[in-house]
Amino acid sequence: MNIKITGTGSYIPEVIEKNEAFHEHEFLNSDGSVINAPNEVIVKKFKAITGISERRYAEPNLNTSDIACFAAEKAIENAQINKEDLDYIIVAHNYGDVKHNTEQSDTVPSIASRVKHLLKIQNSKCVGYDLIFGCPGWIEATIQANAFIKSGIAKKCLVIGAETLSRIIDKHDRDSMIYSDGAGAVVIENTNEAGGIIAHETATFTLNESHFIYFGETNNQDIDERRRYIKMHGRKIYEFALINVPLAMKSCLEKSGFDIKDVKKILIHQANEKMDEAIVKRFYKLHDLDMPENIMPMIINELGNSSVATIPTLFDLIRNNKLENHSLIKGDLIIFASVGAGMNINAIVYRY
Amino acid sequence: MNIKITGTGSYIPEVIEKNEAFHEHEFLNSDGSVINAPNEVIVKKFKAITGISERRYAEPNLNTSDIACFAAEKAIENAQINKEDLDYIIVAHNYGDVKHNTEQSDTVPSIASRVKHLLKIQNSKCVGYDLIFGCPGWIEATIQANAFIKSGIAKKCLVIGAETLSRIIDKHDRDSMIYSDGAGAVVIENTNEAGGIIAHETATFTLNESHFIYFGETNNQDIDERRRYIKMHGRKIYEFALINVPLAMKSCLEKSGFDIKDVKKILIHQANEKMDEAIVKRFYKLHDLDMPENIMPMIINELGNSSVATIPTLFDLIRNNKLENHSLIKGDLIIFASVGAGMNINAIVYRY
Repeated sequence: MNIKITGTGSYIPEVIEKNEAFHEHEFLNSDGSVINAPNEVIVKKFKAITGISERRYAEPNLNTSDIACFAAEKAIENAQINKEDLDYIIVAHNYGDVKHNTEQSDTVPSIASRVKHLLKIQNSKCVGYDLIFGCPGWIEATIQANAFIKSGIAKKCLVIGAETLSRIIDKHDRDSMIYSDGAGAVVIENTNEAGGIIAHETATFTLNESHFIYFGETNNQDIDERRRYIKMHGRKIYEFALINVPLAMKSCLEKSGFDIKDVKKILIHQANEKMDEAIVKRFYKLHDLDMPENIMPMIINELGNSSVATIPTLFDLIRNNKLENHSLIKGDLIIFASVGAGMNINAIVYRY
Repeated sequence: MNIKITGTGSYIPEVIEKNEAFHEHEFLNSDGSVINAPNEVIVKKFKAITGISERRYAEPNLNTSDIACFAAEKAIENAQINKEDLDYIIVAHNYGDVKHNTEQSDTVPSIASRVKHLLKIQNSKCVGYDLIFGCPGWIEATIQANAFIKSGIAKKCLVIGAETLSRIIDKHDRDSMIYSDGAGAVVIENTNEAGGIIAHETATFTLNESHFIYFGETNNQDIDERRRYIKMHGRKIYEFALINVPLAMKSCLEKSGFDIKDVKKILIHQANEKMDEAIVKRFYKLHDLDMPENIMPMIINELGNSSVATIPTLFDLIRNNKLENHSLIKGDLIIFASVGAGMNINAIVYRY
């Protein structure tokens, strides 16, 4: 028995927020001090590092659970399964439903319960739960689905990553330009087909790293509010990721028994283009190789960093031949890899 | 190989909030209308139905992750394991860390990452994640730990239920009297000892039930705010639970291969005394039996409903001989059962 992704779907929100939209923002340092550069320069520098020129925001009337459902509907249709046959709906997210122009996260009922409700699934044996694991949540949910199928308590799982980070950002923080909204979903099943999930690896670093990504106050100290926003120590994350993500990927590949030369694509969490490139280069360097061309498909330029949604969205776009110069054929070896709040790192070696 | 709970711990917050404290509240119906009864009568009626005479609130300086850590430390000590040998830390909660006198849920990093940080665990292979599954979250996390151990990806798991519901309540809602704060934790391991988790059952009802417990506005329509609170349709939940929880327990017992007469204790989520009694009575009625005396230990009278924390706290108190008339000896058959937001229901048949 093998455990494979048999269907994918994604939802790319319709509101396009271009870098130019940030020219009017008042950016401040985290200590509240003024940044000694005009916004055009700040935005240009941001683009050079992250690769992001625009991002997507969910329409005001839609919440995380709605866009999760849109992606799920497509994945179910693509897998050609009966939705009533699903044993699990696992939704990875970090902030739940945050209604437009409000600040509270709504996680009761779980996003999975909301998705199941929206999908009109009747079968009460289909268990829905939410997983909070930072940006690597979708990979981790896939690893959990794999464990449930292996242990005999499930046959078919719907695994979703969905987030509306646009509602958690501090507009006085340059990092607010990174974040985006989106949803991606897959159906995972046991199958007699060759391939599927071959190996996986997860690590949680908390001794010094737990608060590299955190909930903090606005950079604008003139604003008197208790509201908090997504915040990060970018430099620390960069240094941490550059060391630990390649090691986790290497360890996962070793477990799989495959050779690095077998790897056809690396689908890495779309966190920051320069960081992603540096991670993959380091991964190859650990094997005394140069990074091959075209190994690392990127969508961050137009879609930004939508946390848990980036990898399933990327995978869905490639499977549907919507990414130039990137395609997959049966038997191709893929590595999924992610890093994010926790700090968590994970990877899956997958045979398409 | 069997999978057993080898250690337990709980944290009972120190602030005691007695029913009398609610005599001064302004209770309103959900439509904002005045309730035609003095508060003393409302509170007396509340006590008669729920069994609650007092509840616990976390000290203002403590958050969900702090009290989760306190319970975890005790469970690790009780299990006599090295904390560095843990493969998983799973924290079931529903609202994350809600700082005293604030309204936002903080779930980044995950509560599991915070607990791991507070426990000073160095081993990066110890994976921490949060599970959102309503009140049945702790049982579900236990079922997940069981699956991970069965599938070979874990040997030792720390499973915690922790919540600070006192920070989510609408003081104009009579239901605010139900909620409490608390944390319970267990260590689950594979072992050569007899017993452990024998069978489990989970169901998620969403077609009509998904919003029986939800996030809603204050009952006081004079207050102009966007803040939302934990809300429930009590009557609907009662009717739903009375039908579906006994069926899930029965199905779980059948899977286990044991007879109802083998059952020594039923540890049910401390939701509401009258409802819990009605559920267990109905469970026995499904087997043409009367409910035996002393089968259902209750702590709701003094501890209220602390959501995910009630069952591990109850189990810990019994194991430590802190509940009069209730004790466990090796080989005793226990049923754990819960119902809550989602709507989710689950049960475990466990041999002590």
